[in-house]
Amino acid sequence: MSSSDIFISETIGTAVLLLMGGGVVAAVTFKRSKAFNAGWVAIAFGWGFAVLSGAYIAAKSGAHLNPAVTLGLAVKGGIEWSQVPVYFGGELLGGMIGASLMWIAYYGQFRAHLTDPEVLAAHRQNGHEGMVYERTAPKAGPVLGIFSTGPEIRNVAQNLATEIIATIVLVLAILNLGLSDDGKGVSWGGALIVALVVVGIGLSLGGPTGYAINPARDLGPRIVHALLPLPNKGGSDWGYAWIPVVGPLIGGALAGGIYQVAFA
Amino acid sequence: MSSSDIFISETIGTAVLLLMGGGVVAAVTFKRSKAFNAGWVAIAFGWGFAVLSGAYIAAKSGAHLNPAVTLGLAVKGGIEWSQVPVYFGGELLGGMIGASLMWIAYYGQFRAHLTDPEVLAAHRQNGHEGMVYERTAPKAGPVLGIFSTGPEIRNVAQNLATEIIATIVLVLAILNLGLSDDGKGVSWGGALIVALVVVGIGLSLGGPTGYAINPARDLGPRIVHALLPLPNKGGSDWGYAWIPVVGPLIGGALAGGIYQVAFA
Amino acid sequence: MSSSDIFISETIGTAVLLLMGGGVVAAVTFKRSKAFNAGWVAIAFGWGFAVLSGAYIAAKSGAHLNPAVTLGLAVKGGIEWSQVPVYFGGELLGGMIGASLMWIAYYGQFRAHLTDPEVLAAHRQNGHEGMVYERTAPKAGPVLGIFSTGPEIRNVAQNLATEIIATIVLVLAILNLGLSDDGKGVSWGGALIVALVVVGIGLSLGGPTGYAINPARDLGPRIVHALLPLPNKGGSDWGYAWIPVVGPLIGGALAGGIYQVAFA
Amino acid sequence: MSSSDIFISETIGTAVLLLMGGGVVAAVTFKRSKAFNAGWVAIAFGWGFAVLSGAYIAAKSGAHLNPAVTLGLAVKGGIEWSQVPVYFGGELLGGMIGASLMWIAYYGQFRAHLTDPEVLAAHRQNGHEGMVYERTAPKAGPVLGIFSTGPEIRNVAQNLATEIIATIVLVLAILNLGLSDDGKGVSWGGALIVALVVVGIGLSLGGPTGYAINPARDLGPRIVHALLPLPNKGGSDWGYAWIPVVGPLIGGALAGGIYQVAFA
Repeated sequence: MSSSDIFISETIGTAVLLLMGGGVVAAVTFKRSKAFNAGWVAIAFGWGFAVLSGAYIAAKSGAHLNPAVTLGLAVKGGIEWSQVPVYFGGELLGGMIGASLMWIAYYGQFRAHLTDPEVLAAHRQNGHEGMVYERTAPKAGPVLGIFSTGPEIRNVAQNLATEIIATIVLVLAILNLGLSDDGKGVSWGGALIVALVVVGIGLSLGGPTGYAINPARDLGPRIVHALLPLPNKGGSDWGYAWIPVVGPLIGGALAGGIYQVAFA
Repeated sequence: MSSSDIFISETIGTAVLLLMGGGVVAAVTFKRSKAFNAGWVAIAFGWGFAVLSGAYIAAKSGAHLNPAVTLGLAVKGGIEWSQVPVYFGGELLGGMIGASLMWIAYYGQFRAHLTDPEVLAAHRQNGHEGMVYERTAPKAGPVLGIFSTGPEIRNVAQNLATEIIATIVLVLAILNLGLSDDGKGVSWGGALIVALVVVGIGLSLGGPTGYAINPARDLGPRIVHALLPLPNKGGSDWGYAWIPVVGPLIGGALAGGIYQVAFA
Repeated sequence: MSSSDIFISETIGTAVLLLMGGGVVAAVTFKRSKAFNAGWVAIAFGWGFAVLSGAYIAAKSGAHLNPAVTLGLAVKGGIEWSQVPVYFGGELLGGMIGASLMWIAYYGQFRAHLTDPEVLAAHRQNGHEGMVYERTAPKAGPVLGIFSTGPEIRNVAQNLATEIIATIVLVLAILNLGLSDDGKGVSWGGALIVALVVVGIGLSLGGPTGYAINPARDLGPRIVHALLPLPNKGGSDWGYAWIPVVGPLIGGALAGGIYQVAFA
Repeated sequence: MSSSDIFISETIGTAVLLLMGGGVVAAVTFKRSKAFNAGWVAIAFGWGFAVLSGAYIAAKSGAHLNPAVTLGLAVKGGIEWSQVPVYFGGELLGGMIGASLMWIAYYGQFRAHLTDPEVLAAHRQNGHEGMVYERTAPKAGPVLGIFSTGPEIRNVAQNLATEIIATIVLVLAILNLGLSDDGKGVSWGGALIVALVVVGIGLSLGGPTGYAINPARDLGPRIVHALLPLPNKGGSDWGYAWIPVVGPLIGGALAGGIYQVAFA
């Protein structure tokens, strides 16, 4: 498979992932959304089926959609190291495109939310909008949680550990599936299982940090948040931004190593 | 497969889709239903498993159940253009039959709801019944949301964009699956994946407009709403009706084109 | 497969179905249960996965677990008419055993509930306990809804129609799957799809009557309710009992006929 | 497959099971978790997908992850008795490792919870923290329910019966699947079905005791609870600890026997 085919496929797949993943957080956060307040079960299934949709659409390139998966596969020996930057590029670009499409789909809701005095006052008081970011240290604007993750309790060591542990589970499951190993693409059964593992990670390990488990999922939308002309959007919390990039990459590499030692 | 076999199969399959899809909205909306107030997670899974049921039952004809899917497949070259009107006809008729059966299944609930002074007063005040249509512009009657979709914020450009984007995801997933390509019917794995993608679209992109993503799903039941002798049923909001027809058709055609360019 | 093998397999499978199906209603109804008030989504998935569990365990005999399915298959020609009474017998006995095991699993909860003055007073007032039976005509005792179904609005014509329509969907899906046709047993994919169709029927069509869609599921546990020595258990609502028997049988037979005409 | 390979695989798989299973209870219990109060549906799906994740990762060794499953397979004749202690050892060690990783992932949340005067006062009053253990007899500390199970109503006979019945369902399903019989590993379809059966057991039979249905799932984390230096952690309720060990082992052995008699 050519590099440009990989790039296009991963870009489109990751765009679908972030369109739908960001979308479910928007759907649950905004008052003028039919899914308002649908709760964490909606979030976890929404992200899982976002993975399923993106994985199907990008099956041709192995549907990594995630630099941590790409890295884990490279460590395991499933793809060549020279392909890694191609995957990374498509994943990051796709994350940015997906977050932008999500914003278009919820255009009016963003405007209504960010100009609602009640919302802004509540955010000033406790930094907690929707259910997706930190309550006590409002370094993040009132809709950042729709784009990127943030911790409930800000603690570098714990936040990194949680992201590393959750990513190890994800990448170990993917490696053991024999998924994406050889560029022949993803089977539908494999995509389904990985999607449900992601639902499980969301339910079980998403509580402390919002489970980025994917650098492209967090960094791409954070850049879009910083660029979009949203009124009262507040900060993009760049001080936290390295954790959901570095943690998942460490987790992915560790999973590749554990796989080699324990299961290969 | 003969045209009449396609027509019968698509009619029955789309009838099941709308019977169950309309049914879950009824189940959640009516006070005298055991599922009253079961929330958006129930709606999203209900519609997804309505797709699953309809797809199984209509597997023989490829289970389009949706003119946007038919159009996307025609653009991709998966079916002949001469079959398109046969599919469209079965889908629209099925949508009308399904909505009628749903009304029979919830007959007493419709009557109780539409003659409840509390319900009618609340609707006059904010146009919001159940969870499925617009709060601020009550052009729609108190049970229209059980039949057809409506926007939370009425904005032609955004509403069209949301329907187009959501339909592109649906049809891209279907085209990439190799589903329905050759009249040999739908595999159970394919039907399951598409059903879960529909659950995901509902959770993630259903917030602004209620995700018609299917002209037959919206127009068929709207016609039934206009025809049924329901007391105090109010308007059928025909001013909005073109958006959930045109948006999904544009989305389906675009998905067919994207597929040809990026994945074929 | 011998008649006694069929009988044993269907008895065990239907016992698992009713143990788990009754169990989820108990789990959601009783205050001293960890799942108290978990809502209709829990009920619908609980019944669906009860079908999945029973279907797996009884795969050898085709896992009908339901006289309406047996009848639909006989009409279609998938099993011999002489086997029908064997299936019916195992299904009814299994339903009774399952309801009894459910009672053992929730023994203390039943006692606490039925001797709680608050529960009894609330039931006298509106006949509504938990979420599973009729509010306005308390002919049923305070825990009957854990054993058998009852309508939200008592109307013979509508209640029958709802059960017929919902059963047609179930049996059409099963017949179109080619499931259980020849005694070779059920595939895991088929069991999964049917289970999710049952979740869908619960979400979409369970609102008015509680979706018996299975005579053995309703009659077996109702007999157990009548026999068990429960304090303050109240009536078993025998006046309604024929509807969830006759309705599903009509629906199953109609589905067999529709299949022959439209899809065979 | 060598004993050490089995041991490593079962240890890692059971660690993932308990990391995620304990994790979802933590996620729902702690105020400073994004999934706070997500309800029993989240718990049941979280545990089910924990099984799915662990089963995938430990597919090579058959993914028992549970001494009751190991025992049922030995009774049925699916594995050799000499392998039983190897499985048991890996399962128990994995349970302890998983519970420890869960504690790391929720480190700050544990501290905040156990030093919150409101939480401690509420626990002293009714022994009910989160949704996972006994309300009326607070022999258990305020976070024990995140590690191990406990009954809603303390009654040795009922509690044992509930665990036995629920484990019979689990192990019968596994045996009928032909899963794990010969060391060739688990198919993805089998893992999916078992995971959904576990979701069903949680929804239907988890109400009275919290469904241990697995000695390693309960005993391993209870030991970790006793060892961890948590402030105000309270007792580990050793008086109850034998029930979720003995009950599931009886259930697993009974299921093996039922299988031999009824289905072999």
